[in-house]
Amino acid sequence: MVQEAYMKLALELAEKGKGFVNPNPMVGAVIVKNNSIIGSGYHQAYGQLHAERNALASVTESPAGATMYVNLEPCCHYGKTPPCTEAILESGISHVVVGTLDPNPKVSGNGVRILEQHGVKVTVGVLEKESRLLNKVFIHYITTKRPFLVLKSAMTIDGKTATSSGESQWITNDSSRKYVHQLRHNYSAIMTGVQTVITDNPLLTCRLPDAKNPVRIICDTHLRIPLSSKIVETAHDVPTYIATACEESEKGQLLRELGCNMIYTPLKDGVLDLSELVMQLGKMKIDSILLEGGPTLNFSALKDNLVDYIYLFIAPKILGGTAAKTPVGGTGVERLNDYFSFRFVNATTIDSDILLEYEK
Amino acid sequence: MVQEAYMKLALELAEKGKGFVNPNPMVGAVIVKNNSIIGSGYHQAYGQLHAERNALASVTESPAGATMYVNLEPCCHYGKTPPCTEAILESGISHVVVGTLDPNPKVSGNGVRILEQHGVKVTVGVLEKESRLLNKVFIHYITTKRPFLVLKSAMTIDGKTATSSGESQWITNDSSRKYVHQLRHNYSAIMTGVQTVITDNPLLTCRLPDAKNPVRIICDTHLRIPLSSKIVETAHDVPTYIATACEESEKGQLLRELGCNMIYTPLKDGVLDLSELVMQLGKMKIDSILLEGGPTLNFSALKDNLVDYIYLFIAPKILGGTAAKTPVGGTGVERLNDYFSFRFVNATTIDSDILLEYEK
Repeated sequence: MVQEAYMKLALELAEKGKGFVNPNPMVGAVIVKNNSIIGSGYHQAYGQLHAERNALASVTESPAGATMYVNLEPCCHYGKTPPCTEAILESGISHVVVGTLDPNPKVSGNGVRILEQHGVKVTVGVLEKESRLLNKVFIHYITTKRPFLVLKSAMTIDGKTATSSGESQWITNDSSRKYVHQLRHNYSAIMTGVQTVITDNPLLTCRLPDAKNPVRIICDTHLRIPLSSKIVETAHDVPTYIATACEESEKGQLLRELGCNMIYTPLKDGVLDLSELVMQLGKMKIDSILLEGGPTLNFSALKDNLVDYIYLFIAPKILGGTAAKTPVGGTGVERLNDYFSFRFVNATTIDSDILLEYEK
Repeated sequence: MVQEAYMKLALELAEKGKGFVNPNPMVGAVIVKNNSIIGSGYHQAYGQLHAERNALASVTESPAGATMYVNLEPCCHYGKTPPCTEAILESGISHVVVGTLDPNPKVSGNGVRILEQHGVKVTVGVLEKESRLLNKVFIHYITTKRPFLVLKSAMTIDGKTATSSGESQWITNDSSRKYVHQLRHNYSAIMTGVQTVITDNPLLTCRLPDAKNPVRIICDTHLRIPLSSKIVETAHDVPTYIATACEESEKGQLLRELGCNMIYTPLKDGVLDLSELVMQLGKMKIDSILLEGGPTLNFSALKDNLVDYIYLFIAPKILGGTAAKTPVGGTGVERLNDYFSFRFVNATTIDSDILLEYEK
């Protein structure tokens, strides 16, 4: 139980890096000697020191003979920083307790092997489930090369995202909308369709203190985005990508001058090939996407089997209306047995709203 | 705390009458003497003995000097059975502990007064909140004369009650559908629209052992119900009411011969005046209605401010489809601020489904 307590602390430290370390994993490390914590640290931001090195830098006495608790297997390769296994060996730490092995099949177990070869005792699998859960985005990305795609929607009890006349601001309460800003911080990118930009003119930034803005991705097959939209107006400040099928055009040139980046994506059945776009984004080191799309884009993402997780906010309201919009539109599936299947994860009340979470 | 424990037992006994006692309240009674339970009983079915008399009939020794715990104030008027206050006075019981007063303002407190006038000590308000919650349908009906109307719907994560081609059987899992049969037992009547009868040809009975069928009410403005529908075919066995605006017609006569009862309801804006119909049903001693309607009927009930409670089952599926049906249709409200407001009560998982409950 003592091991679990120290690992829990490492996990809590790790989580402080949420939203800042992508596409790296969240990692925390705690160094214990004679039943006292003599150092701790976490990976704070992409490109900066790893958790193990931060913990070692913080020790209040010599770490020789100490035990290190770290939620992810220490790396053994040169990346942006030198391998952590080297730092551990240099420090004289005699025991490393690992939450879970590196999920990358190419290196999984190598860090442990190097430590053991040099006489360090290694224990693997303490709070393994929790360790894997914390880094589910990283694990998904590193094993599939595809960003973890999270569909977020907000609707009424009767499944409406807007009134029959199109009013949609706001369905949910203040606290739910604040929660969405937390989600924007957590994930690397935010994606929506050009129709949402035209209708709602959103900013799609994260308005929380000490948080980061996600990269903004607008799916815009025919480059219909208004140059006067808030997205374009703020493109010099917040990284903005317009995914389009219009390869070279005057408007594309204009958008580039206004700070937008263009991603050329081929068409499939007359619309952007979403699978292809998502793979392109994965190559750009985008490990996760929060999809805040309208019903058409959401349906495309589901049809292409791209949705990994769902956050559904339900407000205690009914709007009615045969013509009112719902979270997922398009043609839909015809046969009931062809439904897109998800697994219920969690229900949370957020003041008067309720948040349901589902995973694939 | 001892009083609460005995009252809890009375409430548990009372609940056994659920679905059988309407439009009477659910009542349980426990008789305690020298810290031992010497008798208990509950109101088992409409027209039968009240809880107090059943408890008195069950005593294992003389109830003189004993305490009776009963969740609702004993009645003091002649109804289907003589007043319970008389039986209590005859028994020699010296203390009556009451959960909550009779909600009927015309008689509230009278039972207590008669007991006290005859020297019986009365304590009111033990587990009052629980006592009122158990009989919320009765309290609503007795104070408003209007049946308690419960909207039940089943939908996917994306708010669909059917696929775009109209397939709807079944959205939810076996356990959720079994739960709906429990609801059918709990309430006095079940209501749906003729379109649902035409599309789904449902039986609308309660298929649980030791349960009762609710009265079936079909809203059928123009008498479109097929004579070959299961509803009509079973009308001799299960009480069936067709609410229609067609006052006298050959089809109405035929339906009567087949066992259906006709309720003539005036039109309002070209459809049945639902408020009027619900008041008519209230006069027929129907204290509660489970509305299992399609989107149009559900919208009418909401527009007329008739919905008191909502059971919403959500299956972990997505169907998509701009044209797919949702729980509430009609014209809907145009302005977001005109939404129908509810209060979240509870979320329960039912295997893979989730059940959300809301109240007005």
